[in-house]
Amino acid sequence: MLYVIIAIALVALLYVYFLGRSLVKKNPGNERMQYIAGSIAKGAVAFLKAEYKILAIFIVTLGVLLALTANSETSSMFVGVSYVLWAAFSALAWFIGMKIATKSNVRTTQAATTSLSQALNISFGGGSVMGITVVSLGILWLAVLFLLYSHLYWTGDSFSLMKILNILTGFSLGAESVALFARVGGGIFTKAADVWADLVGKIEAGIPEDDPRNPAAIADNVGDNVGDVAGMGADLFGSYVSTIIATMILGVGVSVSQWNNWVTSIPGVLFPLIISALWIIFSILGSRMVRIKESGNPQLALNIGNFWSIIMTAIASFGVIKFLFPSTVMISGEVYPSIYLFWSIIVWLVVGTLISIITEYFCAKGKRPVKHITRNSLSGAGTNVIAGISVWMISTALPIILLALGIVAAYFFGGVYGVALAATGMMATTGIQLAIDAFGPIADNAGGIAEMSHLDKKVRERTDILDSVGNTTAAIGKGFAVASAALTSLALFSAYKEAVGIPGIDISNAKVLAGLFVGGMVPFLFSGLAIRAVGNSANAMVKEVRRQFKEIVGLLEGKPWVEADYERCVNISTKAALKEMLLPGLLTIISPIVIGFIGGGEVLGWFLVGVTICGVLAAIFQSNAGWAWDNAKKMIESYEDGHEHHYKGSNSHKASVVWDTVGDPLKDTSGPSLNILIKLISIIALVIAPLIK
Amino acid sequence: MLYVIIAIALVALLYVYFLGRSLVKKNPGNERMQYIAGSIAKGAVAFLKAEYKILAIFIVTLGVLLALTANSETSSMFVGVSYVLWAAFSALAWFIGMKIATKSNVRTTQAATTSLSQALNISFGGGSVMGITVVSLGILWLAVLFLLYSHLYWTGDSFSLMKILNILTGFSLGAESVALFARVGGGIFTKAADVWADLVGKIEAGIPEDDPRNPAAIADNVGDNVGDVAGMGADLFGSYVSTIIATMILGVGVSVSQWNNWVTSIPGVLFPLIISALWIIFSILGSRMVRIKESGNPQLALNIGNFWSIIMTAIASFGVIKFLFPSTVMISGEVYPSIYLFWSIIVWLVVGTLISIITEYFCAKGKRPVKHITRNSLSGAGTNVIAGISVWMISTALPIILLALGIVAAYFFGGVYGVALAATGMMATTGIQLAIDAFGPIADNAGGIAEMSHLDKKVRERTDILDSVGNTTAAIGKGFAVASAALTSLALFSAYKEAVGIPGIDISNAKVLAGLFVGGMVPFLFSGLAIRAVGNSANAMVKEVRRQFKEIVGLLEGKPWVEADYERCVNISTKAALKEMLLPGLLTIISPIVIGFIGGGEVLGWFLVGVTICGVLAAIFQSNAGWAWDNAKKMIESYEDGHEHHYKGSNSHKASVVWDTVGDPLKDTSGPSLNILIKLISIIALVIAPLIK
Repeated sequence: MLYVIIAIALVALLYVYFLGRSLVKKNPGNERMQYIAGSIAKGAVAFLKAEYKILAIFIVTLGVLLALTANSETSSMFVGVSYVLWAAFSALAWFIGMKIATKSNVRTTQAATTSLSQALNISFGGGSVMGITVVSLGILWLAVLFLLYSHLYWTGDSFSLMKILNILTGFSLGAESVALFARVGGGIFTKAADVWADLVGKIEAGIPEDDPRNPAAIADNVGDNVGDVAGMGADLFGSYVSTIIATMILGVGVSVSQWNNWVTSIPGVLFPLIISALWIIFSILGSRMVRIKESGNPQLALNIGNFWSIIMTAIASFGVIKFLFPSTVMISGEVYPSIYLFWSIIVWLVVGTLISIITEYFCAKGKRPVKHITRNSLSGAGTNVIAGISVWMISTALPIILLALGIVAAYFFGGVYGVALAATGMMATTGIQLAIDAFGPIADNAGGIAEMSHLDKKVRERTDILDSVGNTTAAIGKGFAVASAALTSLALFSAYKEAVGIPGIDISNAKVLAGLFVGGMVPFLFSGLAIRAVGNSANAMVKEVRRQFKEIVGLLEGKPWVEADYERCVNISTKAALKEMLLPGLLTIISPIVIGFIGGGEVLGWFLVGVTICGVLAAIFQSNAGWAWDNAKKMIESYEDGHEHHYKGSNSHKASVVWDTVGDPLKDTSGPSLNILIKLISIIALVIAPLIK
Repeated sequence: MLYVIIAIALVALLYVYFLGRSLVKKNPGNERMQYIAGSIAKGAVAFLKAEYKILAIFIVTLGVLLALTANSETSSMFVGVSYVLWAAFSALAWFIGMKIATKSNVRTTQAATTSLSQALNISFGGGSVMGITVVSLGILWLAVLFLLYSHLYWTGDSFSLMKILNILTGFSLGAESVALFARVGGGIFTKAADVWADLVGKIEAGIPEDDPRNPAAIADNVGDNVGDVAGMGADLFGSYVSTIIATMILGVGVSVSQWNNWVTSIPGVLFPLIISALWIIFSILGSRMVRIKESGNPQLALNIGNFWSIIMTAIASFGVIKFLFPSTVMISGEVYPSIYLFWSIIVWLVVGTLISIITEYFCAKGKRPVKHITRNSLSGAGTNVIAGISVWMISTALPIILLALGIVAAYFFGGVYGVALAATGMMATTGIQLAIDAFGPIADNAGGIAEMSHLDKKVRERTDILDSVGNTTAAIGKGFAVASAALTSLALFSAYKEAVGIPGIDISNAKVLAGLFVGGMVPFLFSGLAIRAVGNSANAMVKEVRRQFKEIVGLLEGKPWVEADYERCVNISTKAALKEMLLPGLLTIISPIVIGFIGGGEVLGWFLVGVTICGVLAAIFQSNAGWAWDNAKKMIESYEDGHEHHYKGSNSHKASVVWDTVGDPLKDTSGPSLNILIKLISIIALVIAPLIK
């Protein structure tokens, strides 16, 4: 079975290779376009290299510590090796994805000079390379290393199986910890540039977005690549493997009867791996369906691809469950009809879809909440931000209620294994979801290149259509991401509880509340540090841009032979982002260790719960806040000229730029990092559990 | 003993009566001043009357329901009667306080024409009337009704004692539910007017704060009275009685040995009542110490009064514990040295003081966090709000860690009784704290009256000194308020747990997490609704003010015979506030009932925990955000004219007005209401516990 999985992953990688080659062969446009795209690619690679250097030190140190402290009975020093390897593979996956993205952007611009459908093909193709690479590399290494460690440790009993899986936990630790730094570092970089572009460019200098006179214009585009492409890739790579591994670990507690004896837990352990391999195929098929005619609707095309993957996931889950499991399974001592496992996946596909729809309602242009924000812009930026805050606070209610109902339902259908399986089910669409997510920044970049190369307005209009589609779809995807992060953490709790052995707990126990309080505070502290980091980096950037406007003669006037010093801005952002990402990153890694060793296993357990509850809440509202504000600004900008209140340069437009800025770091830096924070802290707790016990 | 308590309360009320009379006899200033003060008083009374009408319907309905559903074995239909009575007494207490406040304001203005120390005396005297009235009425009725119900139900066993205390729970329900509406309604009113005053007045019309040309100027001052005086009074009245009652209920579980038998829990039950009565005396003594010489520092005077009360509280607690308890007590089956009870009070006085110091650090002018915000104002309102958000998120960390350590310590020193006692200890300073809290808005009003009566600049400067002292002290007091709300809720959990009988709980139980998630969401939904309410009311106000500026000829030019239509603004604010307070209020009351009946006792228990964790976090950050932004604005305004970046009318000043507006509803509407929400939801759970069990 494992060989089949490996074969599927290899074939998928081969597909990606050819897809990538065909993309690179497309026309990269004129010299000016190539020069700009080259600068973007150079900046992005420089950032990743600098980031990798810092990460390497950190990862190797932690890997050695892990190897030294590993308990040889339940684990092995391979856990350290796995950790380092896994971090390296994650880095490889998003490096490849980003490379292709920086090649696709300019080719999308060139295609957009003639055709919208061609532009969609290339930009979505670039996204697909990222998406399929991430899932294939993830599954490939999971299968290969599982096979390898099985040869080393497998003795036929569930104890040895558990040992193998404990070593695999090192993998998810590696993947999630690089993901956190990539997300935070990339998020700081991209917002430092973007916040600048909005403030100094639009308001102070009065020049449009992506204007080549803007010294931070290249940095802004580099940011899209390192934050939204590489950061997102790292994020989803981490989610993907850690969810699958958590489900595999809980699968040890699932027994299947053979010859009337409850004997083997192998099907429960392998099920998540098998189904994920199948999903790679569906993601490829789904991504092939994203095609439009010249006058077609790109949003519809993406939705069809996405929806199709979900339907196929549901059907395939049913088939594999019928094939792998007998009619009943025993999960932690209780007997369930095996078809219940199917239902826990279905419940969460429905919950995830509903959360996405609600998210769209609260964030989309033209819907009541965003209209409420724009209406409040008439009395200025202050009342507006108030309106925005009230919208995002209210927007937490329905998703959380759905989440709570979904947890109870998944638990009913399959205990903790059901919960974990539901999380894995939500990860099924990772391939195509990442393709959609990466497609947005590629289209965004393409628009920037068009603007900076002084191409025809028509080109920019075409890329703007793609960009706005990408934005909406990405916002919806965040709903799925938060829900699955919550589920994965819950699954990890159970694993942690088993590892530490927490007894029944008294609701009024002081330790419970102390743990919950401190845990609940961490997401806020983390967000605060990440947001402050953006502010700090943006400040450095703003000063540099003002200096260039002042000192480079003729720049603002747009004299053709005068170039801004783009590279300096990229360097400043790189340095600031890498420096500023350390504090929030270290907080995440150190806090569970400190709480665990000072407070003990029980307090750490409740700390995890606190982190999850408040982390999920904060992630939902930060992401919704950012998107709602962004779309409210876009709504005002899209009014016809001559509208009574809303027009470019009106008070309400100026106010909208302020609040869009406020939302930027919430939706792109701190918000999405919280999903990783939640899981990473749970994984760290699981890894140190044997030590604090 | 109860008679002594009643006597103390009556003497205190007599003191208040004479203090109030002496205040009313002071010179109320010239005709113009009296006219303005009269308008403010009229608006405030009109608001309270309209509010009382809505509250009466609500309270009587709920009272009848309570009486009908009461279980006659463990409670009685008197719980409904108590509920209604108690709501009425709360309303009486803050009505008296507000009446005196609206008389003290203009007399403070008059006193400020000649002397700062006289102005302090009158404004603080007005605050003291409110403070002492609230605590005396609270203790008086608690003691009287306890005596009454004892005659009816006391049979000598702890079961009958519990029954009496269960009826008393109706009291705290009554006090807290009117508190919530008073806080939310008053908070919406005051901010709708205040947000207007900042935006339309300063930015659009370019007139200073409290300018008589401003049609919302009176409404703004009415808002100070109904929001900051009456709302705060209702809030502290509710906290005060519900904390004492919660401690008394837990006191039933405290046994004291007599003749070598653990027999009676009377000392544990009466202790909170006795010590609270003593604190009334200390509050009066402390308030008498707030005196300054003409050139003196009012901040120092308030601090001395406050600090002195805390010291006396500590000493008295020690004495009363020695007097009431033998050397050991038994709390829920475990034996503790009775001196430990003293330590749990002391620990929390220290924790409360530390939280206040940290709060001050994060919010005060000239300290690093506020400086960080002002520095970021150079690049505009957007980066500023970002800086502010990062500061308030970070500011949650230390208070929460202290809270967690404090909970563990209090629990160590006296189990749940220790936790409750610590909360009661924090309430010891309610009398003087409320005096300080109410003194701020009186001084603020006095300044407004000076401005609107065209008095000498000197007068306004004197009242401004008092106002800013009031602001700082109030911000510090909020730290105490949040900490004690958290403690009271924890104490209520235990009572709830006993009432419902929740078993040991599994950390990975789906119900636990579902309850926590939904509970954690409620404070955000509530805040969102409350903030949206302010936005909605402010919008109505802004339109009216713009209309008056446009339609009333000569108003903006300040022609002496042209008056703005103040009353209309007050009416608009009143209507909007009362309409908008219903939704968040009903959410608070209905959510625990729905969760309890659908999910059962266990889910409701975890729902409570979720509400407390996220409620405390949200309360801390909202309050800190508002004060930090407010002080950042003040810091920019206090720079000397001619400062390079910061001067009135500069970009950074304009940005500061935006963010001050954003912080306003956070610190004065939603933030402080959360303290009530936390406790009210716990109390409702406790009341419905017998029904869902």
